[in-house]
Amino acid sequence: MNAPSSAGAAPLARYAASRRMGDYVFLSGVIAVDPAAGRIVRGYDDIPAEAAARIGRTGEFSCDIKEGPILAQSWYVLDRIRQTIEAEGGRMEDVFKLVQYFRNLDHFPLYNRVRKLFYPDQPPVSTVVEVSGLMPTDDILIEVEGTAYLPLRRPE
Amino acid sequence: MNAPSSAGAAPLARYAASRRMGDYVFLSGVIAVDPAAGRIVRGYDDIPAEAAARIGRTGEFSCDIKEGPILAQSWYVLDRIRQTIEAEGGRMEDVFKLVQYFRNLDHFPLYNRVRKLFYPDQPPVSTVVEVSGLMPTDDILIEVEGTAYLPLRRPE
Amino acid sequence: MNAPSSAGAAPLARYAASRRMGDYVFLSGVIAVDPAAGRIVRGYDDIPAEAAARIGRTGEFSCDIKEGPILAQSWYVLDRIRQTIEAEGGRMEDVFKLVQYFRNLDHFPLYNRVRKLFYPDQPPVSTVVEVSGLMPTDDILIEVEGTAYLPLRRPE
Amino acid sequence: MNAPSSAGAAPLARYAASRRMGDYVFLSGVIAVDPAAGRIVRGYDDIPAEAAARIGRTGEFSCDIKEGPILAQSWYVLDRIRQTIEAEGGRMEDVFKLVQYFRNLDHFPLYNRVRKLFYPDQPPVSTVVEVSGLMPTDDILIEVEGTAYLPLRRPE
Amino acid sequence: MNAPSSAGAAPLARYAASRRMGDYVFLSGVIAVDPAAGRIVRGYDDIPAEAAARIGRTGEFSCDIKEGPILAQSWYVLDRIRQTIEAEGGRMEDVFKLVQYFRNLDHFPLYNRVRKLFYPDQPPVSTVVEVSGLMPTDDILIEVEGTAYLPLRRPE
Amino acid sequence: MNAPSSAGAAPLARYAASRRMGDYVFLSGVIAVDPAAGRIVRGYDDIPAEAAARIGRTGEFSCDIKEGPILAQSWYVLDRIRQTIEAEGGRMEDVFKLVQYFRNLDHFPLYNRVRKLFYPDQPPVSTVVEVSGLMPTDDILIEVEGTAYLPLRRPE
Repeated sequence: MNAPSSAGAAPLARYAASRRMGDYVFLSGVIAVDPAAGRIVRGYDDIPAEAAARIGRTGEFSCDIKEGPILAQSWYVLDRIRQTIEAEGGRMEDVFKLVQYFRNLDHFPLYNRVRKLFYPDQPPVSTVVEVSGLMPTDDILIEVEGTAYLPLRRPE
Repeated sequence: MNAPSSAGAAPLARYAASRRMGDYVFLSGVIAVDPAAGRIVRGYDDIPAEAAARIGRTGEFSCDIKEGPILAQSWYVLDRIRQTIEAEGGRMEDVFKLVQYFRNLDHFPLYNRVRKLFYPDQPPVSTVVEVSGLMPTDDILIEVEGTAYLPLRRPE
Repeated sequence: MNAPSSAGAAPLARYAASRRMGDYVFLSGVIAVDPAAGRIVRGYDDIPAEAAARIGRTGEFSCDIKEGPILAQSWYVLDRIRQTIEAEGGRMEDVFKLVQYFRNLDHFPLYNRVRKLFYPDQPPVSTVVEVSGLMPTDDILIEVEGTAYLPLRRPE
Repeated sequence: MNAPSSAGAAPLARYAASRRMGDYVFLSGVIAVDPAAGRIVRGYDDIPAEAAARIGRTGEFSCDIKEGPILAQSWYVLDRIRQTIEAEGGRMEDVFKLVQYFRNLDHFPLYNRVRKLFYPDQPPVSTVVEVSGLMPTDDILIEVEGTAYLPLRRPE
Repeated sequence: MNAPSSAGAAPLARYAASRRMGDYVFLSGVIAVDPAAGRIVRGYDDIPAEAAARIGRTGEFSCDIKEGPILAQSWYVLDRIRQTIEAEGGRMEDVFKLVQYFRNLDHFPLYNRVRKLFYPDQPPVSTVVEVSGLMPTDDILIEVEGTAYLPLRRPE
Repeated sequence: MNAPSSAGAAPLARYAASRRMGDYVFLSGVIAVDPAAGRIVRGYDDIPAEAAARIGRTGEFSCDIKEGPILAQSWYVLDRIRQTIEAEGGRMEDVFKLVQYFRNLDHFPLYNRVRKLFYPDQPPVSTVVEVSGLMPTDDILIEVEGTAYLPLRRPE
C-alpha cells in the first residue's frame, strides 16, 4: 500500500520520484533533466514544439534565448509533476502544494505564467524562494517539490 | 471540504493562502506584505503600535531602525499565520510546523524572540535556512511556511 | 497523542525535535551539533570511530581533512534522524521524505554515499538545494528535514 | 640514445611527450586531451566504460555529472603516463615522482582514489598545488608531470 | 637500492616523503603539518621556542601574529627537509634545488630570511611562484619541494 | 665539481642561477629582470632591437604595446637560459625540459612562437601552468625553469 512508486521517470540519483503515504502522495523535487537521456532542458528545442508555442515562443532569437530556458524548464518540471501524479491515479489539481526554488527570482513572472496553464482553476498553496544553487549544474534554474492529496477512499 | 480557503488575505500572486486537505491545513509561505494595500512592512510604523511595543520598540532611533524591520516583519508574518489558521477554525498552536527562510541568519535571535510570543507553551517543529532571495523585493527579510493539524473529527 | 516528542536530543533553540500528528511524524531540520555538549561536528574525530571507518575515513590527513567535515556531518545528521524516529517507535525506512539543504552542492556525492548506508533498500523522496547560510555558524555544511509515516494502527 | 620519444601520443603543441636523458625519463605535463581527436575528456563517457566503472561511476546522473569530470580526467592522465612509460620500456611504478597541478584542491581526494589504482604498492614522491589556470581551456581540471627512473643497465 | 625511504615523517597522504633514485634523492613537496599529530603549524607556538627566537619572534603581539605564521611554517618546512635528507645520510647543502610555492608572495622576504639560516654558504637553485591554493587547508602558506644530489659513491 | 655556477647573471636574491649535479645542470626559475641594472623587461625597448624585430615587433603602437611585454619577456628569459647553459659548456638544445609559469595563459601562443626560435629542431619536454603571482612585481608575466643534460663524459 505504501509501496514506492516508480511513477514518473527514473530519478537522477537514488531516490524515489514519489511515494504514497496514507492519503497523500509526496513528490521529490523535480528539475528539468530528462533522466532517460541524461539531458538538461536548456530551451524551447528541448521540449515538444506544441508546448513551446503555448508557453510563449516568439520565434525571435533574442527573446527566445532570454526567456526560453526558464519557460521551457518551468513547463518541463510541471509536466513531469503532472505525469507523476497521473501515474498514481490522480490529476494535476490533486497536487495542492508546491515549494518552488529559483536560482533567480526575476524568473518568477515567467514561471507563474506557465503554472497558470497547469492550474487553470484552483491555484495551489505555494512557497517561493531563491537559492544559491541547484543540482546538478548551473544550467538548472528551478526545482519544484509537490505534495498531493489523493485519498484511498474518495469521499462519496 | 477540500475547497480553497480565502482565509487570511488575498495573496500577492495567484495562489491559495491555505488549503485544508484531510486532517491537515497547509499554508503558503507568508511574507510581510499587506496584500490589500500592496504595502511592504518595513518597520514598526507598519504594524499596530501595541504590537511594536510588545516586540521591542525602544523609541531610540538608531536601535529601532536596525531591529525594526526584522522584528516588525516577524510579527506580521506570524500574525498572518495566526489569522489564517483561526479562519480555518484552529489556533496558533495547531500550526505545529514552520519552515523559516531568512535573508540573513543574524536575524534569527530577533525572530525567535517574537516567535515565543506566539508559542508561549509548546514550540513548533522548525527548519531554518538562509536563502539568497525572497519575493517580491529585497526589503523582504523573512518568509515562513506553516503546516497545521486540525482533525475533522477532534478526538473525544 | 499529539504531544511534543522529546525524541532525539534537546534542540539548540526552543523548538521540538519532532512531533507526531495523526499518522505522520514531522521532524525539525537537523544539523550536526551535539546539543548536550553544544559542540559542532567538524570531522571524523567528532563521531564514533566505527562510523568514521564505515563512511570512508582513509587515515590520510590531507584526504580526511577535506572530506571529513561533510562525511561526518552527513552521518551525524542521518543518525540523529534515525535516533529520533526510533524514539517514536519507528525505523529509518519510515522516514520516507528528506529535504536536504547544502552549503555547497559539490558535497552531494559524498552525502549521497552516506545516505545509501541508511537507506540500503528503498530510497526516500528527496529535495536537494544549496542555500546561502545555515544555523548556527559557517561550519555547518548540511541541514536535513525528515518526514515519517508511522500509522497509529499499522495495517493488518 | 637521448633521442626524443614519440612515446604516448602526439602532443597538443610542439613539445616532446617524454625524453630519456641518462637513466631518467622526463615526461611533459599531461592533461586530459585526446590529441588524436583533439577532444577534451569531460566525463565518464569519454573514457572506456570499464575504467569508468572501476573509478566510481554510480549510474546516478547527478552524482556522475558532479564527480565524473575530475575522476575521468584523473584516470585519463595517469593512464597516458602509464602508456608513455611503457612505450619507453618501463612500468608505472618506474614513474617515481609526480607534480600535480589542480584547478580546485577539493578534487584531491577523488584524484587520490584513482591514483591508488595506478600505484597499488609503492606510492610516488608527490607535490600538489592549486593553480589559477591550465591549458587549453577551463574544462581542464588537472595536469600531472611525471619523472621516471629507468636505468640503461638495470642493476644485476 | 631504490627502495622507498621512510625518511622524515609519515606523509599526509599516501605518498613517499622521499625516494632515492640513482645518485639523486627526490623529496615530496613539504608543508607545515605535523603528520603524527595531524596538526597544522600556525605560528611560533607550534615550533620549538629556540627556533622561534632564532627566526625573529619579537614578543610583541601585533608583530608576531602577522609574521609568525609564515616564519614558523618556513622554519618547519625547511627543517623537515633537513631531517629527511639527514635520514638519507646527507646534509642540507646536498638539497641543491628548491621549488617554492607561496600563497602570497609578500611572504617571500620573510621566508628568504629563514632559508639563509639553512643555507649559510652555498644557496640552492630556486624557483618561486604564487599559487591559488595549497593542501590541505587555507592555513598553509608555503610548500617546498626539494631535490638532493647524494652520489652512491662519493667522488674520492 | 658540484661548485655553484656564476653562469648567466647575478641572481635577484640569494640563490644560484644554475648548479651542475652529476650529468645534469639544474637552472633556477628565470624571470625577465636584468639583475645588473635591476631593471624589469617591460617591452621591446628593453631588449636588443634585432631580437625585437625577430620576435614580431610591428612598429604599430597598439600592437606592440599589447604583444610587446610578453614577447620581450619570453625572448629575454629564454636567452638568459641559453647564456646560462653556454656558460656551462652546453647549448640550448641540452636544456631538454622546461617548466613554464604564466600569469595569463592567453600569452601561451605568443611565448610558443618565441620558443620555436630557440628550439628549431627538437622541442623540449614541457609543463605549462598559470599561477596567481610571480616575483618580484606584477609586471612579470612569465617564469621558466630549465633542466639540462650535459654528461661529464660525452658518449663516444
